[in-house]
Amino acid sequence: MSAENNATEHDWFTERHDHSGSSIGFRITSRLHAEKTPYQTIEIYDSTDWGKLMVIDGCMMVTTRDNFLYHEMMTHPALFTHARAKRVVIIGGGDCGTLREVLKHDEVEKATQVEIDERVTRLAEQYFPELCESNGDPRAELLFIDGIKYMKELEPESLDLVIVDSTDPIGPAEGLFNADFYKSCFEALRPSGILVQQSESPLAHLDLIKSMRTAMRMADFQAVRTLTFPQPCYPTGWWSCTMARKGADLDGFRERGAQTKQFETRYYSADMHKAALASPEFMREVLGD
Amino acid sequence: MSAENNATEHDWFTERHDHSGSSIGFRITSRLHAEKTPYQTIEIYDSTDWGKLMVIDGCMMVTTRDNFLYHEMMTHPALFTHARAKRVVIIGGGDCGTLREVLKHDEVEKATQVEIDERVTRLAEQYFPELCESNGDPRAELLFIDGIKYMKELEPESLDLVIVDSTDPIGPAEGLFNADFYKSCFEALRPSGILVQQSESPLAHLDLIKSMRTAMRMADFQAVRTLTFPQPCYPTGWWSCTMARKGADLDGFRERGAQTKQFETRYYSADMHKAALASPEFMREVLGD
Repeated sequence: MSAENNATEHDWFTERHDHSGSSIGFRITSRLHAEKTPYQTIEIYDSTDWGKLMVIDGCMMVTTRDNFLYHEMMTHPALFTHARAKRVVIIGGGDCGTLREVLKHDEVEKATQVEIDERVTRLAEQYFPELCESNGDPRAELLFIDGIKYMKELEPESLDLVIVDSTDPIGPAEGLFNADFYKSCFEALRPSGILVQQSESPLAHLDLIKSMRTAMRMADFQAVRTLTFPQPCYPTGWWSCTMARKGADLDGFRERGAQTKQFETRYYSADMHKAALASPEFMREVLGD
Repeated sequence: MSAENNATEHDWFTERHDHSGSSIGFRITSRLHAEKTPYQTIEIYDSTDWGKLMVIDGCMMVTTRDNFLYHEMMTHPALFTHARAKRVVIIGGGDCGTLREVLKHDEVEKATQVEIDERVTRLAEQYFPELCESNGDPRAELLFIDGIKYMKELEPESLDLVIVDSTDPIGPAEGLFNADFYKSCFEALRPSGILVQQSESPLAHLDLIKSMRTAMRMADFQAVRTLTFPQPCYPTGWWSCTMARKGADLDGFRERGAQTKQFETRYYSADMHKAALASPEFMREVLGD
């Protein structure tokens, strides 16, 4: 299993994650694209085993092979928890994989993706066309504006679900991880509405998860739950999303709906939904559920 | 580039995993030890964030910080599935972390660790003393002999649980992944006895998991189940173990026993046991459960 020999034949893209002192890498065959946008630097690589990679400011964002884990878990648990989410907003999510999963749900009447950097989406269309296959759905709206401002200006109680599919809480996404932003989400949501946000690694960022949950409660969300799932291309290979709900609990979900869903998934199922809600002991001790 | 060069140049130890085209690395501060035993090369590193690392033939085996995930999931699900496992054999497991978890169970009367390379255990005693804290338990027996031969020569129907905690299925551990070895385990187990074996990454080694399960069934095991769990220091950061049971099913476990257990765990709980039994859709499609 040691692969020293391959180092000469192929290059590797490696993301060294300072905060956790660990790195993740992929064996690449070529760099297909690189550009500096007004917001960040975006690179696209081709790899031997993981399809295409999208890297933003040196951080792995998406690989062709493993993005299904993240995209399915950022969407279906929330959509099968809500009784009928008609209006959905995605903040970030420029690769359009979250949008695609959301639009698999017939109850969704409109899904708006609010990505600040249009180039992320244009490059996804080119290099990850499968993630963009629902961009032409008449229910889809793609905006390229500031998500923080967008949420603040939305009509109160006009949404059922807000999905925050952002980069890490440094750089452009920093303002998406605080009580001010959560308050905007809270006000834009109808009663029983849900906010779900990617919340980093359970092993490396438990303090961040805890502070996000505290901020969500400060913004008057009644219930908060953190779900975990594997994600090989992110630091530590283990990731989470945190759901917060307005005026209702997060204890159940439409289990029968999930069991009889009319679309395919590769990770998510009713059983995996329940599994993701279970908290490892060390998380339960710190987070309290 | 070799691990050693990597360490010298960048202060990172990186394992490049040929089969999956991905790598995992840790930021290290020093190499504390290196030796070539008759079986393999063992290195010990100190790291900035993961405690000590044990590396065998270039492959990460154990870190201080994340080994609890693997050791708890290799032991407690099987021990809480069996009604009362009195006699336990661990094949491999030289770092003694699996032995420690097994001995947390009062029903265990004797646990024998059969590790081929005594140096693994001696180095674990020195660098991972917390994993070896139960080595002096009167119920513990530590043997340093060939596990394949040991299993073949055991008295029939003398064991309740066999845990195969080995390196990858190449090199010294190759003979632990086939029907001949499973047949030895089957014969050594009493009725309702359980075999549990580490079964690599669900994402990178699904073909291996499938062939292991087939070989277990060929060795007359009645029921087979694969459990998944995060393991940041192994390729893809996501790992599995596969349980096989003699003359009984694997559908339930002693849930009440797990809920009221009198010892601490950091990952395992009754809820996490159920969660680990849930199969992601892509696994269910290939493995059939």
